[in-house]
Amino acid sequence: MKHGGDLTEAMARHGGAPQQWLDLSTGINPWPWPIPVISDEAWQRLPSRADAAALIDAARTAYGVPAATSIVAASGTQSLIQWLPHLATPGPVAIVGPTYSEHASAWRSAGREVIAIGDISELPQQARHAVIVNPNNPDGRIVDRATLAAAARLLQPRGGWLVIDEAFADVTPEITASALCADLPIVILRSFGKFYGLGGLRLGFALAAPSIADRIQAAMGPWCCSGPALQIGAAALCDHVWAEATRAALARQAARLDAILRNAGLELIGGTALYRLTRHREAVRIHAALAQQQIWCRRFDWANDLLRFGLPPDDAALDRLAAALSDRR
Amino acid sequence: MKHGGDLTEAMARHGGAPQQWLDLSTGINPWPWPIPVISDEAWQRLPSRADAAALIDAARTAYGVPAATSIVAASGTQSLIQWLPHLATPGPVAIVGPTYSEHASAWRSAGREVIAIGDISELPQQARHAVIVNPNNPDGRIVDRATLAAAARLLQPRGGWLVIDEAFADVTPEITASALCADLPIVILRSFGKFYGLGGLRLGFALAAPSIADRIQAAMGPWCCSGPALQIGAAALCDHVWAEATRAALARQAARLDAILRNAGLELIGGTALYRLTRHREAVRIHAALAQQQIWCRRFDWANDLLRFGLPPDDAALDRLAAALSDRR
Repeated sequence: MKHGGDLTEAMARHGGAPQQWLDLSTGINPWPWPIPVISDEAWQRLPSRADAAALIDAARTAYGVPAATSIVAASGTQSLIQWLPHLATPGPVAIVGPTYSEHASAWRSAGREVIAIGDISELPQQARHAVIVNPNNPDGRIVDRATLAAAARLLQPRGGWLVIDEAFADVTPEITASALCADLPIVILRSFGKFYGLGGLRLGFALAAPSIADRIQAAMGPWCCSGPALQIGAAALCDHVWAEATRAALARQAARLDAILRNAGLELIGGTALYRLTRHREAVRIHAALAQQQIWCRRFDWANDLLRFGLPPDDAALDRLAAALSDRR
Repeated sequence: MKHGGDLTEAMARHGGAPQQWLDLSTGINPWPWPIPVISDEAWQRLPSRADAAALIDAARTAYGVPAATSIVAASGTQSLIQWLPHLATPGPVAIVGPTYSEHASAWRSAGREVIAIGDISELPQQARHAVIVNPNNPDGRIVDRATLAAAARLLQPRGGWLVIDEAFADVTPEITASALCADLPIVILRSFGKFYGLGGLRLGFALAAPSIADRIQAAMGPWCCSGPALQIGAAALCDHVWAEATRAALARQAARLDAILRNAGLELIGGTALYRLTRHREAVRIHAALAQQQIWCRRFDWANDLLRFGLPPDDAALDRLAAALSDRR
């Protein structure tokens, strides 16, 4: 199971139609920002510079990005993850892990040496670049801005970049390192689809000083975001009332989920308000037992005792998970 | 004017709201495949492998791609154009032109030497790769399969690729070189948005032998196409009745447009059923006169005597163009 969110494997092994499954394998908000009527033009014409500018303005306010820092929109942060190793100066990259596996995959695919480290403050001498997911996926660990700034200052004379993937920072917006970008070689990634519950839309952003952002923008080329992504993204990112209410609702639902997981004897060891990480020595068996009841949570190939749970969308789903976890004992 | 389809520049110079303008600056079909209701899931969840497989199957039939040739879906062919210079082996590229300018831009951005050539049969010794747009944009020139195969055979021992951009081949599907991909180092690009009238959707394909296609697929990474693009693309590419009727309708509309352009004294020198290329020694003045009447056609920075016209969507638009062209005299 390389990624969450794809029931293809779940259904191939355990049967059932998609609507029978309770998919808790992702960190995507189950209560999406409501899709408005999409204008015919958003589908039909090529997105204009004015469309893109409106999106960037909305992102700047929503993410609190200082004026001296540039914002590049892309068709999902994954597309930025694919590009960064081809745009950064040659040299090895240190990746703080265990974490989202696509960073290492992308740097390796680009022919880079990847050095796995456990802590950003242990940057090895030979690392030219570094990648950290903050808050981390799956354990939710948050590294403070001073520590990130120190790492970036170490990489600066090496001509390196510190990539900070803030894919799940919307639920803890105060932790963003965007204030550091103007003066340090930092590239921040912000994902739209997770917090706004629209993973299929494909929209994400890179924040960086203009000298770095211009290089990323040139690689994206024209029209890299769809018309609907520009329209929806610009509107959703301006909806600060929804964002505030959603942060509160996600926190409440995460607490309900925690209670169920604890009741079932799983040890809560981390996460964010969009996913919870648990430990249990029979995690593999629990994963299989849940799958037999068409509940799909997330396992990791690097740890046999961990399970990650996304948020159940409603009380029925919470009850269903609680019942399934109690059944398996 | 680097590209068509963006009224931002037109409105900045000549005023008017978007809906007042008649945009003839692109080669996008003005009669889009009708957008169906998009499922909530297409917006909300990450696209699955099953979604992607359905799209690829539909593309294989629609484009007549042999089983031995792989198909990679991407978020618009532009994103493939951006990637190819980073994936091809080092060395110069020969580009048959004048043509769509983004090919040269992308190869230059990747640090490649670009050799401009006028004919694919004049491949210089030092070119490792070559790019041709077929039918060409803007002049519509079509190069036959035997000539393309000969060029690819020349590049094969050099470890090079022949990139054939078939962005406008849907109106002349019989010219596709996809039968050549299995045995020769050819990458064919197919654009979805132009013929299906959905430029904002962002969907395109690369066709190539598996050894090449796998490299492109790895660069795209997971979830590169949006959920709506997968849903709409799979359905539209299965609608062969619509495609056949649309080919006939576009040809009829192009003939009506030709009559108006000829009547106005413009010399028709090429194009496809999605755009018409004309020559007139006062092309710059005609472009400005049309813009003053909120009609936006396409000029080229490399030729002062050429204008390209996309298809007016209806009789009113044809009449409006005819009247504006007659006014300017």
